[in-house]
Amino acid sequence: MKKFIGVDLGGTNLRVGIVDLETGTVLALRSIPTLAREGHDAVIHRMTNLILNIICDNKISKKDLGGIGVGVPGVLDLEKGTVIFVPNLPDKWLNVPLRDTIAEQTGLPVALLNDARAITYGEWKFGAGHGVDTIACFTIGTGVGGGLVVNGQLHLGISGTAGELGHQTIDYNGPQCGCGNYGCLEAYASGPAISAMGIKAVLQGLTTNIGKLVDYDINKITPDVITEAARQGDRVAKEIYDQVGKYFGIAIANVLVSVGPRKVVMGGGVAAAGELLFASIRRTICDRVTVMPVDQVELVAASLGDRAGVLGVAVWASQKLIDV
Amino acid sequence: MKKFIGVDLGGTNLRVGIVDLETGTVLALRSIPTLAREGHDAVIHRMTNLILNIICDNKISKKDLGGIGVGVPGVLDLEKGTVIFVPNLPDKWLNVPLRDTIAEQTGLPVALLNDARAITYGEWKFGAGHGVDTIACFTIGTGVGGGLVVNGQLHLGISGTAGELGHQTIDYNGPQCGCGNYGCLEAYASGPAISAMGIKAVLQGLTTNIGKLVDYDINKITPDVITEAARQGDRVAKEIYDQVGKYFGIAIANVLVSVGPRKVVMGGGVAAAGELLFASIRRTICDRVTVMPVDQVELVAASLGDRAGVLGVAVWASQKLIDV
Repeated sequence: MKKFIGVDLGGTNLRVGIVDLETGTVLALRSIPTLAREGHDAVIHRMTNLILNIICDNKISKKDLGGIGVGVPGVLDLEKGTVIFVPNLPDKWLNVPLRDTIAEQTGLPVALLNDARAITYGEWKFGAGHGVDTIACFTIGTGVGGGLVVNGQLHLGISGTAGELGHQTIDYNGPQCGCGNYGCLEAYASGPAISAMGIKAVLQGLTTNIGKLVDYDINKITPDVITEAARQGDRVAKEIYDQVGKYFGIAIANVLVSVGPRKVVMGGGVAAAGELLFASIRRTICDRVTVMPVDQVELVAASLGDRAGVLGVAVWASQKLIDV
Repeated sequence: MKKFIGVDLGGTNLRVGIVDLETGTVLALRSIPTLAREGHDAVIHRMTNLILNIICDNKISKKDLGGIGVGVPGVLDLEKGTVIFVPNLPDKWLNVPLRDTIAEQTGLPVALLNDARAITYGEWKFGAGHGVDTIACFTIGTGVGGGLVVNGQLHLGISGTAGELGHQTIDYNGPQCGCGNYGCLEAYASGPAISAMGIKAVLQGLTTNIGKLVDYDINKITPDVITEAARQGDRVAKEIYDQVGKYFGIAIANVLVSVGPRKVVMGGGVAAAGELLFASIRRTICDRVTVMPVDQVELVAASLGDRAGVLGVAVWASQKLIDV
């Protein structure tokens, strides 16, 4: 079976891996800074360079490659192979013909997929979601991404746009989200939103422990720092994760009553907070969901880490480019 | 092909039909008052009586019948064939072994399905949702029911509980819902919630037109009365439907970003308000949804009326009881 290249275009890092789908392993993986502020042309150029280099350096012949899958943190048109927009990158990547540009620059067939859907698919195929017919996955980073596998199929909806679980409204009068809507989960519980909760607590003088961890430089407050403070016993930091878990629980409750997955997989950096976050999510869904058997739903942490996106998008490419 | 009996157990009326699935027609249909306050045993007895009578009177032999499908307005355990609870019936029908009881009393095999899922399936197979792979359906009555067809399959989730679109939280600080949760769509936009908006407006003296239509007896204010007042030009009645459309729009937006149906079908009595309601829903989803192509989603009224549930549950029974 041919190997596939998986690309994970993140806001911070750009990862490229060679994937063996038979064993579900990443044979080689490289990561470079995305440097998104340089604009999409520069990023794409650096991406194709990295792809060609990893192929050469690993002495793989192009004819042994089935193609390239690219995970993109934005709204795509899968039919046209274009990026419609990327909310969290500086120049937004408006209507960029990404599929054909990469295909041209590499001489290999390309399939695009939203990055969170790629992680969902990777976790379902090889990771924490394995063995279950229907899962929901949340990825918590700069934004809150999501994806669904329904009855053993990655659920795409219209042109791959389904599964945007972070853009569910949990309070229609809530704060504005990067997507333009008001009260989306992402507006409450993304990485930056969590950091802001920590910054606010420090500025209000509610805790000194978070501040101490960053030498009182609030620029350095991240969800990881808040996790660290909570693990050291800081009450305010714990309350922040309680609150974040409540927000996630409300959105997950919506997914449970509408889609009814057997597993909910939590991925992305913030999910590393583990039980700090998960205990509150579990409490919230038990409190709020009565119309489906919530005891039959498992909440689990993603298990593939950085490799989930690369693996998932490679699986996707192998399906999409099957006739190539 | 064998015929099927479809039963639609409503809070007000109990309907039984003989269904020819080849043509998608209801050959005979009878409706009696449910008299739910008499308790589940009495209702089930009246139901099986009506089933046996309609079979006899139409001179159909039991061997020409494939079985009975029963649509129930509550939470079911499809594997066990039991009703877990019915929020909007007086005695709640807690853990009633409905499937086996009807099978015993009629001598025919029985399959249960949530009533809104039955309507969803009926509308998808023979009505307003026909010809589209993925649809979402809302049914607005005493509660707000829902259902999903995903990739040409009625989406069941865990034991048939998926598709409870009326129990999505649209404001986590919102009013309590009959299901126990806070801020569900149903708590804002069910038939009783809409009636209450009309009653409040009359009591506040904001409009005389709604009051006039019911001879100033607020007990008689229903969504239909408010629709009538709006059609006669009453500003307050129009505003009520604007607001109700906004609530539905927010919940529909959640379904669009997560599931991405190509069609959203609106059924139940309140949907008869038509454009009074739909215009506001369209405006809301256009305003709120940016992460999927909302212009590719059609919002339509259900087209099968009272027959949708009977037809849908008969289709379901034909699948479920296929080996009988």
